Parts: sequence; C-alpha cells; structure tokens
Amino acid sequence: MRAIVVEGGKAAVRDEPEPTPSEGEVLVKVHLAGICSTDLEIIRGYAGHQGILGHEFVGTVVEGTPKLKGKRVVGEINCVCGRCDMCTSGLAAHCRRRTVVGISGRPGVFAEYVALPEQNCHEVPETITNDEAVFAEPLAAAYQVLRQVKIEPRMNVAVLGTGRLGLLVAQVLAQTGSKLIAVGRNPKTLNLLDRKRIRTTTANDLTSKQDYDVVVDCTGAPEGLKTAMNLVRPRGTVVLKTTCHADAAIDLTPLVVNEVTLLGSRCGPFGEALSALARKQVDVASMITRRMPLDDGLDALKLAAEPDHIKVLLKVVE
Amino acid sequence: MRAIVVEGGKAAVRDEPEPTPSEGEVLVKVHLAGICSTDLEIIRGYAGHQGILGHEFVGTVVEGTPKLKGKRVVGEINCVCGRCDMCTSGLAAHCRRRTVVGISGRPGVFAEYVALPEQNCHEVPETITNDEAVFAEPLAAAYQVLRQVKIEPRMNVAVLGTGRLGLLVAQVLAQTGSKLIAVGRNPKTLNLLDRKRIRTTTANDLTSKQDYDVVVDCTGAPEGLKTAMNLVRPRGTVVLKTTCHADAAIDLTPLVVNEVTLLGSRCGPFGEALSALARKQVDVASMITRRMPLDDGLDALKLAAEPDHIKVLLKVVE
Repeated sequence: MRAIVVEGGKAAVRDEPEPTPSEGEVLVKVHLAGICSTDLEIIRGYAGHQGILGHEFVGTVVEGTPKLKGKRVVGEINCVCGRCDMCTSGLAAHCRRRTVVGISGRPGVFAEYVALPEQNCHEVPETITNDEAVFAEPLAAAYQVLRQVKIEPRMNVAVLGTGRLGLLVAQVLAQTGSKLIAVGRNPKTLNLLDRKRIRTTTANDLTSKQDYDVVVDCTGAPEGLKTAMNLVRPRGTVVLKTTCHADAAIDLTPLVVNEVTLLGSRCGPFGEALSALARKQVDVASMITRRMPLDDGLDALKLAAEPDHIKVLLKVVE
Repeated sequence: MRAIVVEGGKAAVRDEPEPTPSEGEVLVKVHLAGICSTDLEIIRGYAGHQGILGHEFVGTVVEGTPKLKGKRVVGEINCVCGRCDMCTSGLAAHCRRRTVVGISGRPGVFAEYVALPEQNCHEVPETITNDEAVFAEPLAAAYQVLRQVKIEPRMNVAVLGTGRLGLLVAQVLAQTGSKLIAVGRNPKTLNLLDRKRIRTTTANDLTSKQDYDVVVDCTGAPEGLKTAMNLVRPRGTVVLKTTCHADAAIDLTPLVVNEVTLLGSRCGPFGEALSALARKQVDVASMITRRMPLDDGLDALKLAAEPDHIKVLLKVVE
C-alpha cells in the first residue's frame, strides 16, 4: 500500500506492507486524513517518530468484529495497555506503555490501511460527512480545554493563535458564552472567526492589563507562552496546547508572583467532538483549503506549512 | 536610624530618616529580621527594588491605635489599595496597586523602624519567641502550598531544595501524612530533616518513573523545574516557589504531553503560620545558624549566601 513515511528527518511517499491487525485490533481502510502541525513538527524531529505519519482520519473498518465491520469510524490515537497505574486510575490517555498512532511507536494513518485497537474506534453517525469526521481528533483536543478549566460566562478568555487548532478551540470556547477574543496574525483565519461573530484581534492591537481569566495558547510557538503571561490575570489560568521541537527561554517569575496556573492539555473526548459535529455546532468545513491525493503527500505537507492554508486533507481511498 | 539599603546593585548599611506612618499605618520598632533568598536576588537586580531591604521581621508597635500599640507583631508584606478588581474579589495579595515591603515600592524591615498598614500586622501570641516569630512570613508562604493543592495521605510528594524555604515547606507538607521526600544536596540541611523523620535523598540518588503526584520546587534555581518535570506523574502538579533573576531555557513539551499542572505560589496565610508556631508544629529554631547586629548586615548577607548557613538573623533593637 502507499504511505507517507518519516525517516531521518525526511518524509517520503512509498510502498509499505499492509498492516495485519493484532488481537483486539481492527483493520481500517482510510478515506481521508488531515495534516496537523504536529505532523510537521515530527518531520523536524519532534517525538522522534520514525515510520508512517499521520493521526487524523476517517475510514471504514474492513476487518474486525461484527460490531464494527463495515462501519465508518474515527479513532483515538493513544493505544493503551489497560493494566498500568495510569490505565487503572482512569487516566488511560497517559498509559505508561502506550503507543500513539503516527506519533510514537505505531504506524500512522497517512496510508491506505491502518490497524487500530477496536476500543479506539468511534462509529461516525450518518449525519456527519467525511470532511467533518476527519476533524474529530483535533476537535476532541479542543474540547479537552473545557474538561480541564471551568469557563463561566462572566470570564475574559483569550485564544492565542488562529491556526488549525486555534480555530477549533475558539469555536468550542465560544459555546461557553464567555467574553472571548481570538488573537491571531493571519487575516484569512481571523476573518473566518469574524464571520462566526467571534471577536478577534491581532497580537499587536491587543492591550492588556493582565485581566484575562483564561488564556489558551494554540500558537505552536514558544513565544505564545510569553504573550499568555502578559494577558492572564493574577490567579488566572493559562492552558498550553503548544508542543514544539524547541526549548524556549522563559522567565517564569510572573507565574510565581501572580500565582498563575499553567495547564498542559493534549488529547480529548471523542464523544463530545462527534456530538458537536453531528449538531453542526462547530464549523470545520470552511477550514479545509485543499484536498490532495496521498501520492501528492509531500506537496500537501509543504502547503500545510504555508499561512495561506488552514486544513489540508489527504484523499486516500474512496 | 540605621538601615540596609540597596542601590544600583549594591547593598550598604547607612543612616536613613525614620519613617512617618501615613493614615492607617503603624510604626514598628524592629527586633529581629530574617534574611531570605529573595533579598539576595534583589541585590542582584530581581524586582528592581531600590531602598531599604528586608521583609521578614518581628517587632513592637510604638505608634498606632490602642488595639496594637505596645503589641509584638509580625507583618504581611503586600500593602494593598482595597479598591481594585483583585482586592474586591478576595485576591488582595494580588492588588493591582500594591507595594511590597522591601521588595517593591516600599521600604523594608532591615532598619530600626518600619511603617506598615495596621491591617498588615498580626499580634504574636506570648508563647511564640522572637526567634520563632521572625519565621512567620516564610512559613506562611509554605502553608500557601496547602491552600493551593489538596494533598492526601496516599500521595507521593517531593520537595525539591532544602534551603530556607524548602525546609519549611517540607515540614508543613509532612503534616499531611503523605508519602513525602525532600530532595537536596546540602548534607547539613538534609540531616536536619532526617532528624525530624522526614525522608530525604540527594537529587542524584533519586530514581523517578514520573510517579510523584505533587512536586514543590523550592530550589531557587531554574533547573528545579526541569527536575520537577522528570518526577511528576502525568496529570500531576508542580508547585513553583522559585523566583530568580534569570530566564531559563525550558522544554515545556512534557508539561503538555503529560498534562501537568504548574502552579505559581507566593505569599500565604499568616494565621496558619502563627498557629503552627504556637503549637510548635514546625521547628524553626534549628534553622537559625547565626545572629548578627544590623550594622554587620553586609557580612550577614554574605553569610546567608553560603551553603553552611541556613537562616541568618539580623538583631536590630531589643
């Protein structure tokens, strides 16, 4: 089968053997896959992943139990042992022995087929299109913010970064009725939020008296945290979504002096993401700027790094 | 009056005019003052403070209302406006217009007299000696950790750094009955905790499987956070007590991937500190390694920076 493989800091489209599902796993034929900033970071060396790239997908189960066979699915990316201290204490996403689809120790979804633990698969309701379903994974990550922080209508909330993840986080947080502002620098993505009546601004135009209750950093750059610390109020919360392959020089004194809470935030609840997509509560379709065949994957990865593009999708098999 | 003054990166002992209390303030004759790592950082440029140094003290009110006049007091260091959004929302320690005794915009206590808002003063019970009372401020900062994090007996807890603040935090956290370990490198301070039956180790001897529920960084060095991130479990909490006059290069990816909570922590509840001192729940006397007259303040500051010394006290007036 065709696949996009990362090896030694480079990505290549090449033939790979079809995966054979292990016990408890299903085989999924991939229809669509989404390119995420993490994929671009992985090519630069983040997480040290070697092998097939990609973790956002929608596909159909072609081998598996009757419960799922023939069903359209999306999939959680953490493949867990079920027995370690994290798994048995309800924190399976942090399993000590986990592999992560396309990120760590397990082949990704930029391929015609992927083998996945059955328990990772979520059936996609008929009312959700493939174009929408492929956003389930990043949208779940956006909903994770609401699982970690209680956001009330009276609160000042800022989302930093209006890239792929920032656009989703802003839409999810807009549902809280809080005083929300999205901070970006790309007129295209800012405009997209404007049309959804989400207040936007550029970082330069944002005046701050450290009066934001919650700031979510989705910039994907180490500078995001610095901006967040300038915005958040004393005893406020900064949610850090940014992972990048670089150390950053940070003065954490304001965090101590202002007793700020800094929360790391990663994967989230697929159920809530699918339910929001089914109710059309979050608009993902307008984020898609290009669809390209898997064989043009290297061009697709290049485009995904350009500011003119938001979500670039890989068409794999119909 | 004699005072230790910081000016342009240098400390000097010299004569200063006696302070005149403003409305709502009392005049305190300082008996004993404690040297804290923050004082040493301030001389290096932290917080940009110019003027009389020092914020840990015990003294007697010589001018003030009948309620406090003649009373022995310790004092909270944040002098607040009472009207800003922080003050009116119960976060007065974060007052937008605050001055901070000996740290920011207000003369400190390394002087014969200091003027303080009456509301900042706490009367010291007779059962607490001056040697003990002078620890009220840093001990309150140690108790702040318990205000911010719920620590249960089943939890693995590590305190990093066994300096002045680490010794207090370790003793406070030992009261929770949690599985506590104090991590240091100074045999003298480690020994002090050993004698209190608090488990200790050196950083080199500490093996970690990222299984600490709570890690409190009291190292006073940027490297502390790095160690903390290696110890804390996924979804665990790191409390940051360290403030220092330096940026640090930090990779915050583990914070995101492991969804760690990083909590800044500063000043704390004087009531709890005084109550612990009165019940002799925390041993502070054994931390005092030297008492020197205010006029030898520069030597005292030098000694306080040496690993052989823990708490160096300045004797001001009887």
